[in-house]
Amino acid sequence: MATGSVKLLGSWASPFVNRVEIALKIKSIESHELIQENVLNKSELLLKSNPVYKKIPVLIHDEQPIRESLVILQYIDEAWLNGPSILPSDPYDRAIARFWAAYIDEKWYPLVAEYRNAEGKEAKAAVVEKMSGGNLLLEEAFIKINKGKSFFGGDRIGYVDIVLGSLLGWVKVIEIMDDMKILDETKLPSLAEWDERFFSDKAVKDIIPQPEKLVEAYQKYIEMKKATSNY
Amino acid sequence: MATGSVKLLGSWASPFVNRVEIALKIKSIESHELIQENVLNKSELLLKSNPVYKKIPVLIHDEQPIRESLVILQYIDEAWLNGPSILPSDPYDRAIARFWAAYIDEKWYPLVAEYRNAEGKEAKAAVVEKMSGGNLLLEEAFIKINKGKSFFGGDRIGYVDIVLGSLLGWVKVIEIMDDMKILDETKLPSLAEWDERFFSDKAVKDIIPQPEKLVEAYQKYIEMKKATSNY
Repeated sequence: MATGSVKLLGSWASPFVNRVEIALKIKSIESHELIQENVLNKSELLLKSNPVYKKIPVLIHDEQPIRESLVILQYIDEAWLNGPSILPSDPYDRAIARFWAAYIDEKWYPLVAEYRNAEGKEAKAAVVEKMSGGNLLLEEAFIKINKGKSFFGGDRIGYVDIVLGSLLGWVKVIEIMDDMKILDETKLPSLAEWDERFFSDKAVKDIIPQPEKLVEAYQKYIEMKKATSNY
Repeated sequence: MATGSVKLLGSWASPFVNRVEIALKIKSIESHELIQENVLNKSELLLKSNPVYKKIPVLIHDEQPIRESLVILQYIDEAWLNGPSILPSDPYDRAIARFWAAYIDEKWYPLVAEYRNAEGKEAKAAVVEKMSGGNLLLEEAFIKINKGKSFFGGDRIGYVDIVLGSLLGWVKVIEIMDDMKILDETKLPSLAEWDERFFSDKAVKDIIPQPEKLVEAYQKYIEMKKATSNY
């Protein structure tokens, strides 16, 4: 079992930080310190710990910084061998999990940013249409990977569950703010059920904030950003 | 030790395929079949094996397809435990290797595509200037990671060596075709020495084609693409 102090530079509202918190919870690493960062005024410690991207999350384990959420999840799994595994044990299953995690971060979630930047109802609807293809891929992948079990990870949440699930809070923010359906449960019945199971899991439910709280935080962020850019 | 047939859907000129070939060589998996794909006319097997991206490389091990070069490299390392390791054994060193591999693929190499698409000498020079920041990061990372040894991976080539080194053939194509210096050895002395060691390594030298051969292939590809788009 790994020892040494564990600090997490993060923010409660960041899905990428939530990922790391969920992994720490799964591994029962309770004694970590969460240092809240302000994205509009980054700390010296963050800039020093992640000079390439200057981004959260950074996990500092025993004074050594680990950056990028997917890298951190794999690190936690490999450094704390006690507790449930986050990645599957079989090499082929691990490869499939890594494939989908990369797909979600590199192809699927960037469309959420594209949606936010799209101007006007029509442009936004076009992005939602684009997302629907990816949603169906994920629905199919879920059915194929879980082998009839509850999660991408099988009987309990694992790598792909954490990677996808963490992002859903922010997808729901869009759905609420724009009264727009992005994840249509009639077309994604398995994912819809998985979504409910995921958010009621004990490693998740106190970590990923309620969408309403994220909406509030997002509106505050937009105001602060405007105020800052007035200088 | 893993058993079962090993097929690789690829092309001799693809750096992402070269990565997989180098890993197979390191693990002494000699009896694999390389199936050459034509990027302008993809095979049914490729489309079926990689429906999401329809891209090479795909490694088919015992009838199971594994996609995306970084995922494949890790799969090979985990499925064939005999032979030298590709990733380091220490969890922190593994995290650092994964961080830089992702940086190279997501931030550094996309600038090569940006360079190709840039029109005119000035626009191209601006991309080269942009690349130089990343080059220096890699020079510093190399010095920090290798702990005085020959490779990113220590005494022998490993994950980051393969990921970065495989791309250098195509960087050299640009340098030759445009008479432009992208990797300036006066500013990158350690990387320049590493480059020589990498390309003379026995797991690499018969796999990554000579830049002149790549230049020829690139010119043919451009002609074929033009011919195809005339229909």
